[in-house]
Amino acid sequence: MSSSNDETSLDKLFSSARVVHRRHFLAVGAGGIVAAAGSAEALAKPAYPVPAGNEEDRKYMAQAIDLMRKAGVTERTGGAFGAIIVRNGEVLSATGNSVLRDNDPSAHAEVNAIRAACKKIGAPNLKGATMYTSCECCPMCYSTAYWARLDRIVFAAAWSDYADLFDDSNINADMKQPYAKRKIKMAQVMQPEAEKVWQEFRKLPDRAKY
Amino acid sequence: MSSSNDETSLDKLFSSARVVHRRHFLAVGAGGIVAAAGSAEALAKPAYPVPAGNEEDRKYMAQAIDLMRKAGVTERTGGAFGAIIVRNGEVLSATGNSVLRDNDPSAHAEVNAIRAACKKIGAPNLKGATMYTSCECCPMCYSTAYWARLDRIVFAAAWSDYADLFDDSNINADMKQPYAKRKIKMAQVMQPEAEKVWQEFRKLPDRAKY
Repeated sequence: MSSSNDETSLDKLFSSARVVHRRHFLAVGAGGIVAAAGSAEALAKPAYPVPAGNEEDRKYMAQAIDLMRKAGVTERTGGAFGAIIVRNGEVLSATGNSVLRDNDPSAHAEVNAIRAACKKIGAPNLKGATMYTSCECCPMCYSTAYWARLDRIVFAAAWSDYADLFDDSNINADMKQPYAKRKIKMAQVMQPEAEKVWQEFRKLPDRAKY
Repeated sequence: MSSSNDETSLDKLFSSARVVHRRHFLAVGAGGIVAAAGSAEALAKPAYPVPAGNEEDRKYMAQAIDLMRKAGVTERTGGAFGAIIVRNGEVLSATGNSVLRDNDPSAHAEVNAIRAACKKIGAPNLKGATMYTSCECCPMCYSTAYWARLDRIVFAAAWSDYADLFDDSNINADMKQPYAKRKIKMAQVMQPEAEKVWQEFRKLPDRAKY
């Protein structure tokens, strides 16, 4: 569901409730919003249970939340998301979401932080590093962190804290569906021609690995 | 599983088999490789069934496969992956994977193509566009396409065609696990402090939407 279809009246209702999942609201109707607001704490949970972080985590998270406010509320480069990456006590990067400033749908705080940290160290691999992000990673950011071989992710707000605003949980749900039921239509052609390139690639003694 | 742990002897065995899932190989041992090679066609399937594309799709896919060969085999900027984005008959971007050249774990062909197309049109939204990618999108690339609001994705090779080389299917499997069982360790701190920023964000009349 795209947030670009929001209607002003709906926005006003949402702004008066602490946390209301947009899809849930649309399902239960306006009458449900009071009950939903009352049970907001119950909704503000991550997608799966996670352990609590420690005091050092809180120190770095405070910086990530500063970047969150800067990106979304004061400097307005994009959504309210901030992230920093730390390895062996060194802050490798500190970034906010810049989707709107950069016209880049991939410019989430976490992806920006991973790209900046990799640029700083001159390698596409962040093994041993921890990412502190103001908000639960969306599927794009989590999988970028996986490719970057990050050891650990600490987050603050959960998807359910802003499900009325951004698509994180919708994308997660979509990706659990088979392709035929996905939001994006899918098709396949020319598998044998591409497989031929994989055969060429496999013969390279120093082929790309990451 | 990181491909950086490959051993040379294992690589040689893999290079002689058309398609063998590395994890499967490790489970069944060297004796299984002959049988696996014999049933390669059965393995070379996408994660879920997809319909076949049409003649126009083949025209654009041929270009994506050229970029795949360039990125992985001839120019060697990264893995063998190429992508192009087309809207209303106009090619908006044409890119290869550049993870190694750019030291950027997010620089997959598809993410590069989405970034370049958005830069070209000056917006973070590609509604109405189709992405042709030489290989089935990894979870990072699929979710970037979702955020970019792409209408359609056409791919050629499937994850199982190169599961011995890259982690696409491993990441997909990892993301189906609860956080406690994920490859990346997860923790949460300071949810109330971040939620406070969401409250500030909700009050902005022209807050970011994408």
